[in-house]
Amino acid sequence: MPKLTEYKDMSPRAKAVVEDIAKRRTVDPAQINNVWKALAKHPAVMERFAEEMKAAFAPGKLDPLTKELVYLAVSIANQCDYCIASHGTMARAKGMTDEMHEEFMAVVLAAQKGNKIAMAYRVPVDAAFEEM
Amino acid sequence: MPKLTEYKDMSPRAKAVVEDIAKRRTVDPAQINNVWKALAKHPAVMERFAEEMKAAFAPGKLDPLTKELVYLAVSIANQCDYCIASHGTMARAKGMTDEMHEEFMAVVLAAQKGNKIAMAYRVPVDAAFEEM
Amino acid sequence: MPKLTEYKDMSPRAKAVVEDIAKRRTVDPAQINNVWKALAKHPAVMERFAEEMKAAFAPGKLDPLTKELVYLAVSIANQCDYCIASHGTMARAKGMTDEMHEEFMAVVLAAQKGNKIAMAYRVPVDAAFEEM
Amino acid sequence: MPKLTEYKDMSPRAKAVVEDIAKRRTVDPAQINNVWKALAKHPAVMERFAEEMKAAFAPGKLDPLTKELVYLAVSIANQCDYCIASHGTMARAKGMTDEMHEEFMAVVLAAQKGNKIAMAYRVPVDAAFEEM
Amino acid sequence: MPKLTEYKDMSPRAKAVVEDIAKRRTVDPAQINNVWKALAKHPAVMERFAEEMKAAFAPGKLDPLTKELVYLAVSIANQCDYCIASHGTMARAKGMTDEMHEEFMAVVLAAQKGNKIAMAYRVPVDAAFEEM
Amino acid sequence: MPKLTEYKDMSPRAKAVVEDIAKRRTVDPAQINNVWKALAKHPAVMERFAEEMKAAFAPGKLDPLTKELVYLAVSIANQCDYCIASHGTMARAKGMTDEMHEEFMAVVLAAQKGNKIAMAYRVPVDAAFEEM
Repeated sequence: MPKLTEYKDMSPRAKAVVEDIAKRRTVDPAQINNVWKALAKHPAVMERFAEEMKAAFAPGKLDPLTKELVYLAVSIANQCDYCIASHGTMARAKGMTDEMHEEFMAVVLAAQKGNKIAMAYRVPVDAAFEEM
Repeated sequence: MPKLTEYKDMSPRAKAVVEDIAKRRTVDPAQINNVWKALAKHPAVMERFAEEMKAAFAPGKLDPLTKELVYLAVSIANQCDYCIASHGTMARAKGMTDEMHEEFMAVVLAAQKGNKIAMAYRVPVDAAFEEM
Repeated sequence: MPKLTEYKDMSPRAKAVVEDIAKRRTVDPAQINNVWKALAKHPAVMERFAEEMKAAFAPGKLDPLTKELVYLAVSIANQCDYCIASHGTMARAKGMTDEMHEEFMAVVLAAQKGNKIAMAYRVPVDAAFEEM
Repeated sequence: MPKLTEYKDMSPRAKAVVEDIAKRRTVDPAQINNVWKALAKHPAVMERFAEEMKAAFAPGKLDPLTKELVYLAVSIANQCDYCIASHGTMARAKGMTDEMHEEFMAVVLAAQKGNKIAMAYRVPVDAAFEEM
Repeated sequence: MPKLTEYKDMSPRAKAVVEDIAKRRTVDPAQINNVWKALAKHPAVMERFAEEMKAAFAPGKLDPLTKELVYLAVSIANQCDYCIASHGTMARAKGMTDEMHEEFMAVVLAAQKGNKIAMAYRVPVDAAFEEM
Repeated sequence: MPKLTEYKDMSPRAKAVVEDIAKRRTVDPAQINNVWKALAKHPAVMERFAEEMKAAFAPGKLDPLTKELVYLAVSIANQCDYCIASHGTMARAKGMTDEMHEEFMAVVLAAQKGNKIAMAYRVPVDAAFEEM
């Protein structure tokens, strides 16, 4: 059983998901990213993920690049190679310069360190932060 | 041995770190956050973390709130309660509204899902993303 | 130093572990999975893991497929590619259909989301759950 | 700002989510679990999570207890205390005996070990597993 | 159902495990650590963990403090509060001074950073390391 | 954009970092490891990581091999393939025999199990460990 299902071989439900994504991105459905080809055999999971991504990246109070950086930050913390490659590329497409990338990495690495320090030294939450 | 060292009981090296932070935040050194009280007995680790945080949050191409959101995203992915409480509070202080918080959470949760889907379906990286 | 030791080149202790596994699975010891070839140089670790796997998958109150799904769920949460590939294959061999696989993934992804929500919103444990 | 919003103080959207859950579980909406009280201020995230949970636990090919065990396995791997407490309790309510719990833990711990062994020894995926 | 079972209330199998540990540590079985009280209802899991710990800490080529530091390093990376508290205490009992603790933390934090850098920049493994 | 920048193509700041590392390791700067080639476009992040590694591995109270084992333990817990390959190789170069490697792995795996047991059984920290 192959891991990826090409667009032309997808079920109608999977094709509908791909067509909606392709239309918004103005790409050919046959050129859809591998993640959708991998999900095609599980249409309910696929539809829900497509809907969740659409809602998460819908225009709102946070600008598109900020959202990509948040997505990329989670992917780095979780060490997901596919996600770092794909959303790193998307962040660049949405305006991330090399300089911004470096600043972003500096924050990600500082956060990583802060996270481990807080755990390793068993730091109790300050009363002032308890209301968060 | 207590976990936290109060400012008045810190070594001169630790006091210097705290004073620099307190000055930039215009707070009383005695009111410094617990993470610094926990690090006070390890001045070399403390100095390096303080320096790294200062550099990461120095004015640059990314605005201060974006940086807080990136920090918070990493902390949620890593499940660091102290960091979520402290940087969640800081994000609010830097302008995160409830509406922005919800949008941010929508992206964090979509990223979490995307990360696990990519791994669970063993999705190969698209050629187009390989140059990232 | 090669990463994998073939059956014919293993020490007697490693060979004994492989033979016991091969016998239960009715396969040729030379066809044993890579994980055992990788462990062959560390016989004490190898023996303990083989014993632990045998005990975990011994007949009991939970049926074999349920156990495979639990193993697979942990492997996805931990993002272990080798384990997802091997135990995904074993789950299919033990009866997991595409439909069951999709249901399983729906639960895994819901759990992932629930885990991150509980941390991100710092949800206190309900009194009713404290006795668990 | 309090972390939890009681049912009586929720917005109509949040109340509707809670009422639907309470009805299916035949409990009083005021007795809803903390996770929903924590999400009440973020109705879009709340609605999507409620929907995802409902779909994941809808009757299907996998029985309810198997689904709870999969959920619990992910929560243990991710070290989510709230989720372990709540879904551990639910697993018991759905029939998990102490004996089944122990068998389940044996598989979870074997999986944890297998995951780390595969990474630490850098085990390449067997050709036979590549099609998964 | 209480989370912890006191020594006097344990089954004979659990008591035997506790007595063996207490004897080696020359403490009163009633004073055994909470982890064993929590495991008492799952004797097979308990016995296997006790045996694994005994084997891991048996005299060998690595000295006892080095082993404690390795255990503590894993526990910090995994963010296990109980394990950091207990094995941090044991590391001190086996000779870890404040100075050594700080050096240890410097390595742990450098490793954390190295790990995330390797993932975030998608660094390919050097040919020279492939034989590891 | 290529992922790796060769030494001859690096900026003066990146070259200076590489030269300092190459000198201490008495290798040709052109033979520097991939991680530095990957970081070359982000000189501030690169300089800070180089400095942190230098400080972490500076002579002190813990011997060089112990530090490598701590680094390797963190890398295994975090499942960083690059780091396991590179620091595994370095640990061997600093004296780790196959026998020591196996003892090390036994402790790492026992720690992994202890970590998950503590979380899964929700073990409260013993009063005696609270002062750590």
